[in-house]
Amino acid sequence: MITAETLWNDILKIREDAPLVHNITNYVVMNTTANALLAIGASPVMAHAIEEVEEMVGIARSLVINIGTLSSTWILSMEKAAQAAKKRGIPIILDPVGAGATKLRTDTAHKIMTDTSPAVIRGNASEIMALYHIRSITKGVDSSHKTEEALEASIGLAKQYNCVVSVSGEVDIITDGEKIIKIFNGHPMMPKVTGLGCTASALTGAFAAVNPNPLMAAAHAMALMGIAGEIAAEISEGPGSLQLHFLDILYKMNESNIKERLKTG
Amino acid sequence: MITAETLWNDILKIREDAPLVHNITNYVVMNTTANALLAIGASPVMAHAIEEVEEMVGIARSLVINIGTLSSTWILSMEKAAQAAKKRGIPIILDPVGAGATKLRTDTAHKIMTDTSPAVIRGNASEIMALYHIRSITKGVDSSHKTEEALEASIGLAKQYNCVVSVSGEVDIITDGEKIIKIFNGHPMMPKVTGLGCTASALTGAFAAVNPNPLMAAAHAMALMGIAGEIAAEISEGPGSLQLHFLDILYKMNESNIKERLKTG
Amino acid sequence: MITAETLWNDILKIREDAPLVHNITNYVVMNTTANALLAIGASPVMAHAIEEVEEMVGIARSLVINIGTLSSTWILSMEKAAQAAKKRGIPIILDPVGAGATKLRTDTAHKIMTDTSPAVIRGNASEIMALYHIRSITKGVDSSHKTEEALEASIGLAKQYNCVVSVSGEVDIITDGEKIIKIFNGHPMMPKVTGLGCTASALTGAFAAVNPNPLMAAAHAMALMGIAGEIAAEISEGPGSLQLHFLDILYKMNESNIKERLKTG
Repeated sequence: MITAETLWNDILKIREDAPLVHNITNYVVMNTTANALLAIGASPVMAHAIEEVEEMVGIARSLVINIGTLSSTWILSMEKAAQAAKKRGIPIILDPVGAGATKLRTDTAHKIMTDTSPAVIRGNASEIMALYHIRSITKGVDSSHKTEEALEASIGLAKQYNCVVSVSGEVDIITDGEKIIKIFNGHPMMPKVTGLGCTASALTGAFAAVNPNPLMAAAHAMALMGIAGEIAAEISEGPGSLQLHFLDILYKMNESNIKERLKTG
Repeated sequence: MITAETLWNDILKIREDAPLVHNITNYVVMNTTANALLAIGASPVMAHAIEEVEEMVGIARSLVINIGTLSSTWILSMEKAAQAAKKRGIPIILDPVGAGATKLRTDTAHKIMTDTSPAVIRGNASEIMALYHIRSITKGVDSSHKTEEALEASIGLAKQYNCVVSVSGEVDIITDGEKIIKIFNGHPMMPKVTGLGCTASALTGAFAAVNPNPLMAAAHAMALMGIAGEIAAEISEGPGSLQLHFLDILYKMNESNIKERLKTG
Repeated sequence: MITAETLWNDILKIREDAPLVHNITNYVVMNTTANALLAIGASPVMAHAIEEVEEMVGIARSLVINIGTLSSTWILSMEKAAQAAKKRGIPIILDPVGAGATKLRTDTAHKIMTDTSPAVIRGNASEIMALYHIRSITKGVDSSHKTEEALEASIGLAKQYNCVVSVSGEVDIITDGEKIIKIFNGHPMMPKVTGLGCTASALTGAFAAVNPNPLMAAAHAMALMGIAGEIAAEISEGPGSLQLHFLDILYKMNESNIKERLKTG
């Protein structure tokens, strides 16, 4: 479904277009996701005021909603922005951070999913299982499950909401409810850097901005994450240097890196 | 009171248990404290919405409250979370950032201390002196005093609130009002990295999650901070690389680093 | 107008005085701008609660207002803090992030400019042009124009608001409406790190705290940014390492770096 060529072409498109990606995201990752978007060539903007989200969506090419540090005023802005994105027809990426950990997060994710039909829901296995009402073990924002355990939930959720579900983990699973793409790239040190899942959602926003096929966009983003993460981890002493090298590698990513490394199926 | 062995045992427990540490902290340090908690093996979560803090406390093993970028809605959430933590009997760590600099900060810290009896109050000398009503010179969030000048205030405050007081500085002082532990590790470049004090509070949360003795937990956190900080500083060109190496060293910390370096008394 | 000597003298003053710089800034850059201020020897504080901004301004030597992630409650705090700064006579630096992209941002910047007469307005070309009511192409928070295109707007705005306008870009332009200083330092990789423009505003706050001439303070800040940025970029593999080296270089900056590198006119 995706190949080194399709991924590389999308990276070139992002670098050429520098699409504006509007993020309503959590405080923890605002700096690092903005940096990842800049590193791949996109143009990030963070804006959450209810007075301006519609206008900002109006000049953006995708909208990334991340519920990692939620509050009631932000939820209103997320909904308003998502409605505006739906009306304009630009893709919405939803990252349901911590869904299952608290009712507020699960309910907010469900409401956004129901009201605005995101193009891609990108989460970890625990979150996706929680959204599909499977009793899962959650521990805050870290997953307690392997992605394979979330396969049924991913497919079910994708069908139910007519969207793509992208689950990050040791193996990444991306599905539209029919087709399933697996990405085998990545490195075990990656979960030791906070917010790399959120970065995956932000990059999905950049790919969705240039590729009208959300299944491919989501898979490209996960493949790029995995490839950049494993190259970066190989030259890192720990999560501090991984976070730095990850950005450098995103910035320098070239076609041969992708051809040599991409493991998908 | 603490030894290389007790510290190492607690690190092993954190790595094994990966305790969920619930942080209601300031915007400046959310990313870096989450990364430090991940690097030592804990599982951080940041959540401040009044609708969800009780539920999040319900799955956490400690609660870290940091008043570095306060506002009235956050204060309500801090109080609600602290009450829930008190009821559940999980330890509360309070970082009174900037106490003494403004009435709002001093009053908020006092209110939390009075209403919910934190296990550990961890601040710099100026903050601890301000909370003990000693006229101190404050300059925003940086200390203008040596920890030794805060010794009387630390002991007094610990007795008054029946808690542990942990003061970071060139020499760290940790006391329960009776016993006093001093840590002589650390490096003068550390205050040039923003939020390492906040990181000390976050790590205190991780140690308090696995060690029921708050005096030891607080001292272990300060010792680990100091040891990691001095190893990192020795290979750093400035505060940018110190921040990175600090995380790498936390992640790679081993028993011999601790045995060779720990200076306590 | 500025020389290596005047810049170096101001750096020495910042290191000696460690002036408290009060920032009401955006979530994306709070960590990185605090670190940059610490690296040059200033003492940053971030505080936005309406209950404490007046008091915090009361102990600060400059106030930096950055509208990068605006909301209605923060606007009230910005105005209150700016009024307090005006009354005390400490310099206000305004960074109109994203002015032109949304009405909320343009209007908020205008209101602060009108009500409180900032010492320095520091933005990119698109923002400065938007504030001067020149139809500009904006793309969120990144500039779509060269600074030269904003020359007329810079001079006009400086005259209109009786302040200094500092425009960052490939060539930096700093003007009080009469004199024009250009800085030719910097590196093309710098815009790939999020928030270096915001860092320029924060450093302008530090220089304005020690230098009563806002034109020189603003030019010194841009020159230091450019010099540190180009030294850092020369040893960086990408934007991740640039962000780190930039802080190290700020921290280690010496007189000969400045003498060898400063390109102004």
